[in-house]
Amino acid sequence: MKLVIVGSVALDAVKTPYGEVENVLGGSAVYASIASINFCETGIVGVVGRDFPQEHIELLKEDGICLEGLQKKAGKTFFWKGVYNNLNNAETLDTQLNVFADFNPVIPENYRNCDFLFLGNIDPILQMQVLDQVKNPVLTAMDTMNFWITGKRPELLEVIKRIDVLFINEEEIHMLTEEKNILKAAQIAQDMGPKLIVIKRGEYGALAYSRDFLFFSPVFPVLDVVDPTGAGDSFAGGFMGYLAASGKVDYPEIRKAMMYGTVTASLTVEDFSLNKLKNADRKFIEDRLQKLREYVEF
Amino acid sequence: MKLVIVGSVALDAVKTPYGEVENVLGGSAVYASIASINFCETGIVGVVGRDFPQEHIELLKEDGICLEGLQKKAGKTFFWKGVYNNLNNAETLDTQLNVFADFNPVIPENYRNCDFLFLGNIDPILQMQVLDQVKNPVLTAMDTMNFWITGKRPELLEVIKRIDVLFINEEEIHMLTEEKNILKAAQIAQDMGPKLIVIKRGEYGALAYSRDFLFFSPVFPVLDVVDPTGAGDSFAGGFMGYLAASGKVDYPEIRKAMMYGTVTASLTVEDFSLNKLKNADRKFIEDRLQKLREYVEF
Repeated sequence: MKLVIVGSVALDAVKTPYGEVENVLGGSAVYASIASINFCETGIVGVVGRDFPQEHIELLKEDGICLEGLQKKAGKTFFWKGVYNNLNNAETLDTQLNVFADFNPVIPENYRNCDFLFLGNIDPILQMQVLDQVKNPVLTAMDTMNFWITGKRPELLEVIKRIDVLFINEEEIHMLTEEKNILKAAQIAQDMGPKLIVIKRGEYGALAYSRDFLFFSPVFPVLDVVDPTGAGDSFAGGFMGYLAASGKVDYPEIRKAMMYGTVTASLTVEDFSLNKLKNADRKFIEDRLQKLREYVEF
Repeated sequence: MKLVIVGSVALDAVKTPYGEVENVLGGSAVYASIASINFCETGIVGVVGRDFPQEHIELLKEDGICLEGLQKKAGKTFFWKGVYNNLNNAETLDTQLNVFADFNPVIPENYRNCDFLFLGNIDPILQMQVLDQVKNPVLTAMDTMNFWITGKRPELLEVIKRIDVLFINEEEIHMLTEEKNILKAAQIAQDMGPKLIVIKRGEYGALAYSRDFLFFSPVFPVLDVVDPTGAGDSFAGGFMGYLAASGKVDYPEIRKAMMYGTVTASLTVEDFSLNKLKNADRKFIEDRLQKLREYVEF
């Protein structure tokens, strides 16, 4: 398997100034894998309950995502309900872990020698269990969030020490490192182990940092940010998918991966759930990438 | 005169987490002209009081800035005192307009046929008086702030209608246009008259917008933002100075002007007052520009 993605598979209820949806497909592993499948073979690891609609399974299959690692358990699927009063911050109204509470990520034999691995934002103890099951991937990456930074810091630091790329929100890197200057914070995070730190800055884009490398991507601007849910996971999925397809991990390729991540995230936010991203083809993505080049090159 | 800059000339007292200074050189016209003089002939229009230290006059002269438009009046120089509790927002502790209260911008004969004109952030009535005195410049630009947006909106809109480039902070364009989406806000602002809108986003860089053009610049990141005072004016000064020196106003040149503005602003924030910017030469600026290219091109 070229790229394996581990994370949540969810049913979401989301309200934004643009409208309201209920029981739609969501979760970090879903956003990331639908983003990456435009670039490379992708297998998903996650868990759903018996209530998970067959149409969502069909969507993932039709897109070509391998579901060998998707467990189905007795009980209900992980459920998240949130409202965006502004488009930068979600207020969580309800979280029901359901089958996700006992998630035990088992990596299928066929995934264990994957080239690239993305650990979505889940309990660092589970992230570690996944790392223990894979055989020497070319590149491992992870995402995390404030909940683990404050609640399971020692375990989180153990995972961070072992991976190559850390994806993290701007607020959360300040929380992780207790440093306000973004460059200094990135350096402190890198000293924790990763070769590359990718900081997601919401409507201000993202930056990639290592001691001898710095790269800024803007957002790909859209007129209507309908629903920001999954933007960060789509960014990571586009980034990882492009790099995995390329096979080369060097700075020129990382620059491009940042831009593919940017374009992929822009598709996610233009509609609820995966409504826009799931229909985007590579041609559409390349057209946006070309525009993005005009927006930054001088 | 190639470029004329109109604005405040001030004595500042500033406190930041890095230290505290008193009675140092400041003001929008000073920051912008010391930024632009690296690129082109620049004349300043402003007013100081009898207390204005001769050493500041000498500094401006030595840098090659034309002071024919700098009036000296009985009374004290404009004084501003502020504290930065974080490095994004200044809290004003004291403002004494002094001689600036009766500022009557008289454009010297030698300035009236200037090619480029920058109207720093002053009363829109004064900005209009300056526009009435110049003869058909190639490009006119202005800055403004929340105080005028709320306090003198009709007069401000009259000025905006007449100029080519509007420099404005991100918060302030939302205030001016009553629109939260940055692209839509930029379009509404452009519909007010200017050919180009340049939105300054603090630590997130800047963007330039017109109906058929969009360009993002990041900040040039520095490890220690010692004092952000004057960053926006230095950005505008670098931008205008580069364009005026080039003489061509087209999109490729505007892209470069954005980047020269970015580099110039980075010098300003690395020390109090103009301590770093005043000593920077073109070679130093070009080196940073080269780095900046690596940070954005893919």
